[in-house]
Parts: sequence; structure tokens; C-alpha cells
Amino acid sequence: MPSHRLPHQLLQRWMQVRERSLRIAACLSAEDAGAQSMPDASPLKWHLAHTTWFYETFILAEFESGFQAFHPAFRLLFNSYYNGIGEKHPRPQRGLLTRPSLDEVLGYRQDVDRRMQQLFSPPSSESLNTTLTATSISASLDELIELGIQHEQQHQELMLTDIKHLLSCNPMAPAMLASIAAGKNDAITDHCTDTVQTQQWHTFAAELVTIGHAGDGFCFDNEVPRHRQFVEAFQLAPTLVSNGDYLAFIDDGGYQNPVHWLAEGWDWIQQHHIRHPLYWRHGSDWQEYSLYGLRELPLQQAVCHLSYFEASAYASWAGARLPTEAEWEYAAQQEKQHSQEASDNAISQLFDCCWQWTSSSYAPYPGYATAAGAIGEYNGKFMANQYVLRGSSCFTPKDHSRISYRNFFPSTARWQRTGIRLARSVAAAL
Amino acid sequence: MPSHRLPHQLLQRWMQVRERSLRIAACLSAEDAGAQSMPDASPLKWHLAHTTWFYETFILAEFESGFQAFHPAFRLLFNSYYNGIGEKHPRPQRGLLTRPSLDEVLGYRQDVDRRMQQLFSPPSSESLNTTLTATSISASLDELIELGIQHEQQHQELMLTDIKHLLSCNPMAPAMLASIAAGKNDAITDHCTDTVQTQQWHTFAAELVTIGHAGDGFCFDNEVPRHRQFVEAFQLAPTLVSNGDYLAFIDDGGYQNPVHWLAEGWDWIQQHHIRHPLYWRHGSDWQEYSLYGLRELPLQQAVCHLSYFEASAYASWAGARLPTEAEWEYAAQQEKQHSQEASDNAISQLFDCCWQWTSSSYAPYPGYATAAGAIGEYNGKFMANQYVLRGSSCFTPKDHSRISYRNFFPSTARWQRTGIRLARSVAAAL
Amino acid sequence: MPSHRLPHQLLQRWMQVRERSLRIAACLSAEDAGAQSMPDASPLKWHLAHTTWFYETFILAEFESGFQAFHPAFRLLFNSYYNGIGEKHPRPQRGLLTRPSLDEVLGYRQDVDRRMQQLFSPPSSESLNTTLTATSISASLDELIELGIQHEQQHQELMLTDIKHLLSCNPMAPAMLASIAAGKNDAITDHCTDTVQTQQWHTFAAELVTIGHAGDGFCFDNEVPRHRQFVEAFQLAPTLVSNGDYLAFIDDGGYQNPVHWLAEGWDWIQQHHIRHPLYWRHGSDWQEYSLYGLRELPLQQAVCHLSYFEASAYASWAGARLPTEAEWEYAAQQEKQHSQEASDNAISQLFDCCWQWTSSSYAPYPGYATAAGAIGEYNGKFMANQYVLRGSSCFTPKDHSRISYRNFFPSTARWQRTGIRLARSVAAAL
Amino acid sequence: MPSHRLPHQLLQRWMQVRERSLRIAACLSAEDAGAQSMPDASPLKWHLAHTTWFYETFILAEFESGFQAFHPAFRLLFNSYYNGIGEKHPRPQRGLLTRPSLDEVLGYRQDVDRRMQQLFSPPSSESLNTTLTATSISASLDELIELGIQHEQQHQELMLTDIKHLLSCNPMAPAMLASIAAGKNDAITDHCTDTVQTQQWHTFAAELVTIGHAGDGFCFDNEVPRHRQFVEAFQLAPTLVSNGDYLAFIDDGGYQNPVHWLAEGWDWIQQHHIRHPLYWRHGSDWQEYSLYGLRELPLQQAVCHLSYFEASAYASWAGARLPTEAEWEYAAQQEKQHSQEASDNAISQLFDCCWQWTSSSYAPYPGYATAAGAIGEYNGKFMANQYVLRGSSCFTPKDHSRISYRNFFPSTARWQRTGIRLARSVAAAL
Repeated sequence: MPSHRLPHQLLQRWMQVRERSLRIAACLSAEDAGAQSMPDASPLKWHLAHTTWFYETFILAEFESGFQAFHPAFRLLFNSYYNGIGEKHPRPQRGLLTRPSLDEVLGYRQDVDRRMQQLFSPPSSESLNTTLTATSISASLDELIELGIQHEQQHQELMLTDIKHLLSCNPMAPAMLASIAAGKNDAITDHCTDTVQTQQWHTFAAELVTIGHAGDGFCFDNEVPRHRQFVEAFQLAPTLVSNGDYLAFIDDGGYQNPVHWLAEGWDWIQQHHIRHPLYWRHGSDWQEYSLYGLRELPLQQAVCHLSYFEASAYASWAGARLPTEAEWEYAAQQEKQHSQEASDNAISQLFDCCWQWTSSSYAPYPGYATAAGAIGEYNGKFMANQYVLRGSSCFTPKDHSRISYRNFFPSTARWQRTGIRLARSVAAAL
Repeated sequence: MPSHRLPHQLLQRWMQVRERSLRIAACLSAEDAGAQSMPDASPLKWHLAHTTWFYETFILAEFESGFQAFHPAFRLLFNSYYNGIGEKHPRPQRGLLTRPSLDEVLGYRQDVDRRMQQLFSPPSSESLNTTLTATSISASLDELIELGIQHEQQHQELMLTDIKHLLSCNPMAPAMLASIAAGKNDAITDHCTDTVQTQQWHTFAAELVTIGHAGDGFCFDNEVPRHRQFVEAFQLAPTLVSNGDYLAFIDDGGYQNPVHWLAEGWDWIQQHHIRHPLYWRHGSDWQEYSLYGLRELPLQQAVCHLSYFEASAYASWAGARLPTEAEWEYAAQQEKQHSQEASDNAISQLFDCCWQWTSSSYAPYPGYATAAGAIGEYNGKFMANQYVLRGSSCFTPKDHSRISYRNFFPSTARWQRTGIRLARSVAAAL
Repeated sequence: MPSHRLPHQLLQRWMQVRERSLRIAACLSAEDAGAQSMPDASPLKWHLAHTTWFYETFILAEFESGFQAFHPAFRLLFNSYYNGIGEKHPRPQRGLLTRPSLDEVLGYRQDVDRRMQQLFSPPSSESLNTTLTATSISASLDELIELGIQHEQQHQELMLTDIKHLLSCNPMAPAMLASIAAGKNDAITDHCTDTVQTQQWHTFAAELVTIGHAGDGFCFDNEVPRHRQFVEAFQLAPTLVSNGDYLAFIDDGGYQNPVHWLAEGWDWIQQHHIRHPLYWRHGSDWQEYSLYGLRELPLQQAVCHLSYFEASAYASWAGARLPTEAEWEYAAQQEKQHSQEASDNAISQLFDCCWQWTSSSYAPYPGYATAAGAIGEYNGKFMANQYVLRGSSCFTPKDHSRISYRNFFPSTARWQRTGIRLARSVAAAL
Repeated sequence: MPSHRLPHQLLQRWMQVRERSLRIAACLSAEDAGAQSMPDASPLKWHLAHTTWFYETFILAEFESGFQAFHPAFRLLFNSYYNGIGEKHPRPQRGLLTRPSLDEVLGYRQDVDRRMQQLFSPPSSESLNTTLTATSISASLDELIELGIQHEQQHQELMLTDIKHLLSCNPMAPAMLASIAAGKNDAITDHCTDTVQTQQWHTFAAELVTIGHAGDGFCFDNEVPRHRQFVEAFQLAPTLVSNGDYLAFIDDGGYQNPVHWLAEGWDWIQQHHIRHPLYWRHGSDWQEYSLYGLRELPLQQAVCHLSYFEASAYASWAGARLPTEAEWEYAAQQEKQHSQEASDNAISQLFDCCWQWTSSSYAPYPGYATAAGAIGEYNGKFMANQYVLRGSSCFTPKDHSRISYRNFFPSTARWQRTGIRLARSVAAAL
């Protein structure tokens, strides 16, 4: 009887990703891990449990022979938004789940990890759900594990944004990280390299471009079908907007002048008294809260933690606009090709610093189809009233970024590492 | 010394449009005209005053020699959203303006109309602001009058949607209109012709299409620049979705099954207990409120007064999707050409029945630029978190629709005459 | 067969009260009469209809032979809060009832008045519901008519407070009344006589007092049972607090210093940015909106349109407190007796200027019992989280005030004519 | 030079109370101790810190020579509502204070306790603030320590109500306590003795009673001045209303019939879908959540965790009413005297089971004066829109109840151990 053995490389990556979540958790106390600062954010403990729930629900429950839930209540407690799975604990009340404890959640992780590993390397055929043929298992199991890895990596970014928001609510401005360790490969950082401001904008001619994921590697369902879009001629800024640039906008009365703002954004900043990026603090000087605590605002670094509305207003003030996602992806394709040919960068900071707001509303690509079952709720149902962000941030796991990757958030979201890359149209009207 | 004489045809249209607003008002009492049923809607009286304010503020104040405001408070009271003009009366409190009375507002209209006509046919050069040269006056004055006409026509549609909403809030379900008078050319109706359901969907091949306004005629700034978009192959339904079709969705549990809904839409219908289109009433049978009062639900007519979320959920349930605005405009271009060549319609109900939700978020066209000054606030600042609607409705003035026209509303808006045209992708993934 | 003839004097009063409502309405347009400025206030038209509905529902429907409702929908539309009568139109949507028109409501009044008068003086016994004996009719009918009169008088005060609030929302600050006509007996005024500030506070010794309505005249059910309360020794200010007095509190930073405020009141003024009485306007000088329009703040007149929280904070700042309702009623009893014996007033402005906040929460008197049926909902169910006001205002109909009268409003209400009389304890601790 | 030595008995009590807070904390994890389930409730950790802050702020900062704050941020973080002390951390965000950790807060307690003990038994005169004379120190220090003890005992009750609310939000309904340990003297219990239902109501004749604290022992400022009130004749139920009694109200449609409800209460239960006491759960049978977890509803025990509105509606349904606080206190005085003379109880369950809602709004006694300084904010500023509760609950520390004790909560509060004792008027109207 056939048995399923997972490709070694996939197993390795899975174990590394699992381990990285624990590394994030190790920086924090059980108390830090349990609190929820706003409905949009989740406690670290919940992230640790939910990413484990994902494997248990979509893999163990399907493939493990004689599957038994680790705890009957966890199916409900750690379901995020899958209506197909059943009821959910109300999102704004995740911070009230003082039980299970962090230790119990770590035990849950260990148990599921152990059973997952058994599934990968079954001692005998019996540990596999024998109603499935080996081939179908292989295909879908590999895919689901890959999806679980990617899912956990997404949550690793959220763990950092959510804990940053939580700690920022504390008047003592506590630090999570001891020092800037930008050098280490997969270290946890909250820091970009400085922006070099002298480069020229890059011009792209009008083109029928092809965007969307290509090749065999993993992608989310929202990155396909690969398809054609026509892009009119445009220019793209070579770097991200810096804190210094943004300070000039503030000093020029940017938050007081409606002319640059989308109407909804203008109302929103009035209502919430928003006058600067989320983590800036104004005392005698401008400071910025980061995972290192409060520090003097680094003027050369990319401005970060901005809403779409602020990004759009800044762009208008600067005589520019935000790029569309097709423009961004096309430019990134060109840059990739160029950088393989030349040693210098025409367009830098595409990845690893701040997610870059685009002017594209999050929508399905032509021919997009959702998967059957609960997994089909992963992306499609969020395609309304959100804007696409491209690139990645220093909170993003290193192997989790792609040219075709589509992140998305509502136009008021600020607690992600979101920044600004400017674009300009050069098309003449037809 | 030069004088400016308005083209006769423009003057005629202007007078007709002014007169049509009064014809709508004539169906209602001063009490009907003063009330405001929700912040999104305005009292009829306010519409009558605001459309007059538009001419006074953007034309008389600029071009009339020795201009004096009709009433100093009106500048503030009847400013809708132009920050460039100064302060505004809070929108949700428009229904509290029992003064000026309807009679005074009608007097305001008469006064501004008289002065506008003087401006058009000045007895001597002195009535024109002599600091302007005749040529520049001519150009901008004609344009501003055209904009004022279009603006008033837009408000005529809103007058009807707003008064319909107001009267629908009255438990007595009063009628505004005595009978269905669909035959008369520019009569006020709240009624479509029946949907013929047997026609086949029309298939369009992939194409680099050109959309946006072409030619010399008037268009709003959001319809240009004309530009290219690539459209993958798709199919479009020849008619709108009917009340009967939509009832099948309801009877199939459409409002109880999250699988078809965008996540935000699902939450929204739960929160507001939405279980059917806005004006449907469920007693022993389904009825529908219209400007004729309550009537049996006409199953053959197009379903109307739906949110984007409901349109999207229905489309998903029907195995289809909403069209993009480029698809819609391209199909309408084709249909126009076809109908000039042949006697039959391949795609009907594009205009005059219900506005059709598209899946396109309202965004600037490539190269879009706002006008300078307060007029620049007309469109651009609303380009966020709204969806484009195409076509026109039976509430739209007859000469106010265009193939390139872009209407837009938030995804929860239901009090406009909004309906559903389905589309399907036929593109194979690349 | 017996017939019921109403005492002539009651009939006269009933007709005068009915006529006075029309006199208030005559000052306003149909547009003024239809608007509702906030959920707490009702349109004038609604008051006119509701006071008529009260007679139709509680008298005609009970006593008229062959009773038929004037309009079937009015039972619901003009029910204020009587659950026993059935469903109600939502209170915040009363301003949306543009139908029936003001003219139709006036017709409703005429019809009910005509039928009421027939009931009072039946041409034959047949017009009376013959299942009732004459005696029981007589007793309860007289009582219900008296209740209807008192009810309409209460609404006459609300008509004025509600229309004042509505007109105050208009940036043009329109006047309802042409001039101060304080001299005329039952004229509509929005004005007090000046406060004389030199008098001494009056001291009352500790006493077992008896409060509550005595005698045969009408009173509301909340004024009985008459009962004993022990009042410790106290002092009462002879006049009301004036605008000038209150200005000194403001100028001393009264709205910025939490020490004088109840905690809930402090939070409330922060949240609503309250910095002065409701109708004060601060330009170069202090002005006050009244039914005469904007006028210079009259420093000698009683301060008015204050919340309980503001009254309490002022009292604390002034080293005093608000009186209890037993103290107030006892003082009024003493004053009445005194003024019959002497020519001067020890305590003035008890009536006809401003309602006076007391520190007494609105609660049932010992032995209080609600009436059976819907009439039992008149008072009792509001006895929570409200404070008693004593006296009367210049908006109160002249024959509608009593020493035992208990008005009541929530601690944040400001649109009534509410003012401050100070008290002080002189009791030594036991 | 004089030194101040605290009376031994006071020191003993202070140490016992400090220890009891730790005993409550010992039942819970750091995660349990950090979470906040609603703005009305505080995390256990915050209670532990705030009760310590009270001694540090009002005693050490005043009396300790060379006082230095334990941590500069704590003055703000653990201030509850004292405007006189300065800024406060926003109450709804207490659950976000993951730092300081529980361990650090326990360290804070140890440090303050050590310094407090030094203050009590100073090794030399230098450790006392020498600007104060020994006598004045003695007087105010003893008083402040007593206030601190009482304050901490109040918070011990809140610790239990708040943690009960938090754990009840967890779908797993976790238990804090292992078993019912009612026998132990000062053990933590969430349990009453059964109600004996056969006893007769007790009748009290009309009387000029004297209420308020008497004697030398401690009381809060809201319990004085002792003063006279006249109480009409009334009857009081000998026991509390039981779960079984209340179930009969529910089964009779009590939550569906507006006739028994205060209008504000009726609206409130509709809006919040309230259909039973806070911790009842309706499955196949009625269950109740307690600190022992879920258990079958004990029908003989007193019904608990009810709002004032529910208590009032039940009383109306039962043909009774809630007692006034004067009635309650007078009855308790009589009971105390009686029980010293006789062996049986006429009125039982006055203390140790549930707080008993009275119909008395929380108001100052005649002659009430607030203390100077921040301590003056302890009680007086909350005297609005709250109702007085009398007695004590099984959550109340054993030596913390008094006949004159006035607890108070808003009419919607349900998370305290609040129950119902019925009263009836027997007074004939005068």
C-alpha cells in the first residue's frame, strides 16, 4: 500500500517557519502575548494558535487516520473568518481568551507539529486516511502544506504589526527589540536602510503588459490568472518617500488643506484628529515609536504607517500620484530583468522596507475563480473597498515576497508598515 | 466694446432644464419639499436652491458686473461640498432649514434666472464684468453654463431618488405620481419596460479597447482622458436581471448563505437586517414601493434599488459576475455601431431603466487632472471606496446619458435606481 | 334616558386650550411646523395631531356611539409612547411625516373638536355609548377631558421649546415672535422679568412637612399620594441665578475645572464641547438666541437652558447646592401663605420664568399607584434617571402651574426653559 | 522629638487586607490578571497596582521623608479617577498595559508595603516628614490608612466581579474556584445559602427615623451626616427573591411585556436582547455561570446579577416595589436590635448574599460636604444617575459591611452581585 512522503525541502521550510513563530513569541511575555489593542489586531497567542488551527483543520482533520481534535473548543476559538468551518469567536473579543494559556497554546503547537510530522513520514500506511489514494493525497497535501506555510508567514508579519500597535498604546513606550540588527538574515527588525534621494525618476513607455503570477512556484489565488493589461506611459520614483519629505508636507500645512485630500479622507482625519503618521510623537522634537522604543525621527528613512488617504494626499501635494498595481508590477518585472543585466538599481526599495500603496482597488483578475470549500474564503470575499499594496516590508519573512504578490488593506489602515512610492502619468490624451 | 451672446441652442436647453426642476417640484407640497430622510439625501427645496446657487456662485459672481449676492447667508446654506467656496451648512441638517421657505427659494430661482438671462443677452457692455476679454468670457462662460445644466440634471435625478426615499418612510406609502406615463417623452416616471428573458448572452473577443469620452460634446472631467484598456474575452447578458430572477435568489436562501457574499457585505446585511431590495415589502405577497405608491411586485421588470453587495452576491449565485466599466463601455460602443447597422438589439436596457453596478472601483483615468479652483472639487475628490455605475435610469433626464458616463456610489447605497447586468469571463488563463 | 352634559366651565376651558394651540401654530409656516430638529423634539404638526389623537383615542373611541377613526393610520402615527395602544411610528422619524399635511392635521383637529362638542352636548341619548351608565360616564369623562386639557397644555410648552430648538439650528437665527409682549396675559413670550439681586436668603427650620397635591383640583398621578417628608433646616435663594451670575462662573473657568462637576457631567461636557448655556452665542460679545432672534445677552435676566449638570456645577462653585423637591414645595407653601398675609415677596420667581432643577431624582411618592390601562403609562414608567424640576416657565400656559407640579427631564436636557435656584443646608450633623 | 506609632490593631488589619488581595490573585494566572472584559471592569493586575498606588499617593507622598515615586509613570497609569492627581490612563485601555508585568506589580506592592511599615514604626524621627506635627500626623495618618484599607476591600469585591465577567466571556466557561467552600471564614466564595420562602413579610409603622452612620467606627463620607427621614408605613420581604421566583417571571413572559418596565429599561432590554439575568445560560436546561464554572441553576438560591431595571420590573410583576434606602436601613436597625433580643431572624439575608437594589437615587445626605483635595473625589462626584444598593454580597470582605453602607451603580449594571428584596407600601393617602 502506498505511503506519502513529503519532499524534504518542503518539510524543512515548514519546520523553519514553525520555528520562526516561536522566535517572535520568545521576545514577549505571556501578558504581552494575550492582549488585543483593537479589533483589527489579534493577540500574539491567538496568532500562534490560529496558524496551528489551520494545519489541524485543513490538513490533520482531512488526512490523519483516526483524527481527534486536540481540544473541541479550539475549532471555534481559533477560526478567523471561515464561515464554512462553522461558528467563530467574535473577533473583538480575542483578547479576552486568557484560557487557554500561552503555555497550553505552545503545547497545542507541539502536539499538532508532532502529528503533522507523523503524517509526513508515516511509519505504516495506517496512519493515513485510507479512503484517499496516494496520488491525490500527495498533490493536495503538498499544496495545503505550502498554503499553511504561506499563511503562517502572513501571520508572522501580523504578529509584529499587532504587537507594535499594542506596545505603542502603553504610555511607557516599551521596546520589544533590544537593538537594530539589520545585518542578520532573518532577524526581526523594524528598520529600513536609508533612502537615497538624488536618483532620477524612471520612465516607462505605454505597453500591453502581462501581470500575475507565472511559473510553478506557490502563489495565492488572487495573483492569477496571469493576464494582459494595457499601461499608458508613466514614470516611477526610484525610492520611497522619506520621513523628511513627509515632514515638509506637514510643515506646509498638508493636514490642514483639503485641496489635496480625497473627500472621505478629509472627513476621516478631522473626525480622528489625525495630524501625522501613526507612530510619530510630537514633543519638543519629532520622535517615532518603533519596536526599539521611542527614538528621534530618522529623516532619511522611508515614511511608514500611513493610511491610503495620507499617501494619496501626499502624492497630490507632491504633484504626483500613486502607481497602479499593474504599473508597479511591470516596473518590478523590468527592474528584475535589468538588475540581472546591470549592477545598479534603477528602482530601489521595492521590497523589504515598506508596503507601497497603489491606487488599485482590490479586485479579482479577469477569470478569477475561488477554490471550493472553506479554503475558497481565503482571499476572494475581501475584494471590496480595500486597496492593493505591493512589495514587502522589513516585517515580511524574507522568502515571502513576490513581484506578483497582492497585499490589501482598507484605506484607513495605518498599523501595517505602509509607505509611499510616487508615480506620474506622461500619457498625452488620445 | 465686445458683448457676449450665448448660442441660442444653449440658452434654450438651459431654460428647459430650469423649467424641468420646477415641474418636479410642482408634484409636491412645501412640506414634502423641506424634509430630509437621511444624511445621504437632501430636501427637494435644497436641491432647488443649490442648483441655483451653482449659477450664482460660479457664473454671476464671476461675470456679472456689480454682482451682489441674493442673500448673504445662501453662500453657506446651499454650498454642497466645495471647500474652496468656504463654510458649509452640515449636510445632515439640511432638513432643518425651514427658512428660507419654498416660496423664497422659488423667488431666488427667478432672480438668478433673470440675471442669468441678462448676462446672456446684455443690453449694453456694462452688465459684463469688463475686466475680462470677450473671448475668454465666451469660452469659459459657455462651458460653465453647460456644466450648470449638467449639474442641475444630475440633481434632478437626485430629487426623484431622495423624494422616493422620503415618501417610502411614511407608513401610509403615499404616491407622488398619479399614473404610469411612460409614453410621454420627458415625463417623470418610476417604471421600466419589461425584461425579455430569452435572448442569448453576447460574446466579445479580447481586445485593446479605447474608452472615455470622444468628440466635442460635453462630458464630465472624470470621463477623460480617453485612453486604452485591454479587455480579455467576456460575455454580457442582453438584459437586466428581473425581479423574478432576484426572487429566485431570495427563495434559494440567498440572504442566508455567506458563500456568495463579499465579507463586508455579509456583515452589513446582518447588521442592518437586510433581506430584500430596499423598496420591497413582504406581506401576504411581495409588493414594491414606487412613486405610484405600493403595487404588486412586477416580476418581469428589472430588479432595482440594490446595493453593490447585493448585486455582487446575486451575480455569484447566478454563476456570473458584474462587468468592469471598460467591458460595459466597449459593449455599449459595439451595440451603438450594431444598432445603426441592424434593426434589432443584441444588448438592451443599457439606458433608461436602472443604473448598472460595475465591478470597477471609481478611480481616475490615466492622465486625469482636476480643474483649478473650486470647480476642481466636482469629481476627483470622491474617487475612493465607491463603485462605478454605467448606463442611466428612468429617473435620468433624457439627454443626460452617455456611453462614457461614470456614475458612482458607495457599495451600500440602495436609494438610487441601481440594478444588475451580468457578465462572464471566457478568457483562458495565460 | 340620561344624557351627559359637561360642566360649562370645563367646556370653556377645553375650547380655550384648543384655540391656544392654533394660536401658536399661526406664528409659523407649514414648513416650520413639519421639521424635527432632534429625536427629543417633535414637529409642531405632530404636537397638533398628537394632542388631538389623545381625545380621539381615550375619549371618542370610548364614549362616542358608532365611533369610527378619522384615519386608520393616525392611531399609529400619532401615538407617542403608549404601548397599550399598539405600535408607534419611530420617534426620531416624526419629521419625515410630510403627509398628512398641516392642513389635513388642522382638518383632523376640526373633526375631532366637532365630535367632542357633540359628545359634550348630545342632541339625543343615541350619540352616547349606551353600554355605560350616565354616572360612570360623567365621572370618567370629566376626568379624561381634564387630563386631555392638561396634556395639551404640556404639549403647548413643548411646541415652544421644540420650535425654539429648530429655529436655533438655522444659521440665519430666524425670529418666531415679533416683539416682547410680556404684558399681555396669555401671550406667547420668551422672556422673564429682571432678577433683583439684593434680597436675603430665606431660612427654613427643620420640619416634618406634608407635600403632594391637596384639594379637589386636577393633578397628575405623580403628585399624589400627599405624604410626609422630614426636611432638615435649609436656606433658599430669593431669586433665580442671573445670566450675569453665570457669566462670572464661566469667566472663572467654570467649564474647565472638574472640581465642581459631577463625574458624568464632566465627561459629558468634554464629549459635546459644551462651554456655555445652550442658546448663548459668543462673538465679539455674548448674545442669546430667543424666539425674538439673536439679542445681546440680558445680564439681569435669569440664566436659562441649562442641563442639570451645569446647574449642579454652578451651585457647587457658588458654595451652595440645588434644593430638593420637598424643600422647594415647602418653601412655596410658606410663600403662598406669607404672600396672602403680606404685600411683599420673600421668595420670588417661583413661577413663570424658568423651571428650577432640584436635586431630587424623579421617583414615585410613597403609596403611588399607576392607573389601569394605557393611561397608566402617562407618568410612572419614566421614573428613572431623570431629575425633578419645579415651578414653571414663561412657556408654561398660565393656568397650568401648581405648587405640587413635578416636571422631569434627564440630566443632560437643555432645550427646556430650565434655570437655577440655589439652596444651602444649615443643619448641624446629629 | 515625637514619633508616630500606629495602633497595633490597625496595622494588623492593614496587613491582613493586603494579604487577602494576594490570595485572590493567587487563584489566577498572569494572563487572567491582565485582561479587561469591558470598560466598566478593570484587570486584576490593575486593581493590585491601583490599591497600592492609593497608599503611595495619599500616604507615602505626604508623610514619607524624602519620598520618591516607585516608578514615575505609575502616578498616571494607576490613577483611577482623581482629577486632582493629574492625568489618567484611559479607563477602557487598562487591559493594554501588558507592562508593568504582574511580577513587577507584585514587586511594587512589596516595596510600598515595606515603606508603609517603616512609616508605621519609624526607627527614628527622621523618616517622618518633619514639617508636620505628630498630632496632626497621627490623626490624618490613621484616617488615611483606614481609608486605604476600606478602599482596598472595595476593590477586592471588584476584583471578583471583574474576573467573573472576564471568565464568563470565554466560551469554555473556565472555573476560578475549585469547590464551594462556604464554611471557611474569609474564603472566596460565589455562593449563598438557600432562601427559605415561607416566612411572612414584616410590617413597619410610619416613623421619623434616623439614618446614616453613628458611632466612632469608620464610614465613608457618603454615609453622613446622620439625619432624620420620615418613612411611611411599609412592609419588607423577609428573604431575597430566588432564582425559582425569577424563573416564574420569565416563564410568565416578563421580558416580553412592557407593562412592568420602566420605559428606559424596556428600550434597553430590546436594544441589548436581554432576556434573563447576566450569567444564566439557556440550553436544554437553565444553567448559571459562576466562579465554579457552569452549573445547574440553583432554584432555591437568591437570583443575582440583575440590573436595576430588571429588579424593578420583577417587583412590579410581583405586585410589590423596591425599598427605599431609608426603609432598608431602618429595617436593618430594627433587625439588629431584635436579633440581639431574640434568637430568630425576622428579616434574613440582609448581608453576605447579594447587594439589594433600592429605589433611591444616589444623592448626598442633607449637609453632606466633600473633603478638601483629591480625596474629596472619592464619592460625591458620582452622585447622579445611579441607584443605591444596600447590604453586602458573598464577594464582600467579611468586615466590610455596615447597616449604613451605601453602594451605588447605574441602572444597567449587572456584573455586580446584585439581587432583589421586595417592599410594599401600606400607607393610606393623607
